[in-house]
Amino acid sequence: MTSREPKQDRSRATRQRLLESTVDCLAEHGWAATTVTVAAEKAGVSRGAAQHHFPTREELITAALEHMFDTRMAEVREEVDEVPVGPGRTEAVITRMVDYFTGTLFKAALQVWTAAAADEALKARIVPLEARFGRAVHRVTVELLGADDTDPATHRLVQATLDMARGLGLADVLTDDSARRKGIVEQWAATLDAALRRAPS
Amino acid sequence: MTSREPKQDRSRATRQRLLESTVDCLAEHGWAATTVTVAAEKAGVSRGAAQHHFPTREELITAALEHMFDTRMAEVREEVDEVPVGPGRTEAVITRMVDYFTGTLFKAALQVWTAAAADEALKARIVPLEARFGRAVHRVTVELLGADDTDPATHRLVQATLDMARGLGLADVLTDDSARRKGIVEQWAATLDAALRRAPS
Repeated sequence: MTSREPKQDRSRATRQRLLESTVDCLAEHGWAATTVTVAAEKAGVSRGAAQHHFPTREELITAALEHMFDTRMAEVREEVDEVPVGPGRTEAVITRMVDYFTGTLFKAALQVWTAAAADEALKARIVPLEARFGRAVHRVTVELLGADDTDPATHRLVQATLDMARGLGLADVLTDDSARRKGIVEQWAATLDAALRRAPS
Repeated sequence: MTSREPKQDRSRATRQRLLESTVDCLAEHGWAATTVTVAAEKAGVSRGAAQHHFPTREELITAALEHMFDTRMAEVREEVDEVPVGPGRTEAVITRMVDYFTGTLFKAALQVWTAAAADEALKARIVPLEARFGRAVHRVTVELLGADDTDPATHRLVQATLDMARGLGLADVLTDDSARRKGIVEQWAATLDAALRRAPS
């Protein structure tokens, strides 16, 4: 960043640094430790500047999850061309979705979801976010698979796949579950492939 | 409880009430709010008696999760005879496992797992518990399904089913997800049935 950079861009860059630092802090240090002050310090942003952008922790954390989610989904969409067509496509798509559910963003979101379970005000803020994230992940998975989501069986199989991916995400929170997970993803992909070929009527 | 009850039985009953209250408190009020003092108060047990059984919060919470898990698994085993044989068996078994992952014990465990992600000492205590619970749930699912777990594809399909059930558990933490979940369980049961018939070589 140089002094010639317009003020508006500097402000946007500061905001973005703060949001990324918030997600990292949530994933690494948990809900209780993630305050505006701590996230600002980790981002190298003054506390005053951070509070100018986000007066409360709830606002900062919600904005951080939304920003990172939208960024991640945009990346997934850009990778569409890299997904192989034909055999191997299903496994490649499931692997991408499982990567999402085992990444830093999921680990950060888990901290917030779990805190919201015992905090009605936070829950009211998070429930619409959960619904939006759920719909977006479902939609992008259907697109990547090239599946016919109007078929009820297909729709449910895609949901089941994402629930499985979410469960794999949770199994990776305390220990590195990657070796076990690899075999499960392969097996699920083969099963889903066979079921999707049968499903559309 | 009467005064004629032997002292040992009263002590065991007190301990059990405290463990049940701890799990309820975790599920409802979260990790931070669940202290020995609060759990004792909710159980109608004196703070001194509670601390005699469990000097630290970590000891109380670990014991509570273990006790409730062992109780729940014993109940599942006792219900073996209620599981229908033949068509419908797979769906009945998956429904039972999903019930487990959407119940109070899972919601309590989620609070502890999430806290452990940002607390090395708690993590060291919880990781062996997670491994033991995972193995026990897998074993009882194989038994209920009457599946051949020595077949690698079958083993992975059972794992995938439990990961899906865990993901459904997480989807139920902030909102009642039971309607969506019902369709997913039906669909996956049909898919798993077809896959298990193909799997054993």
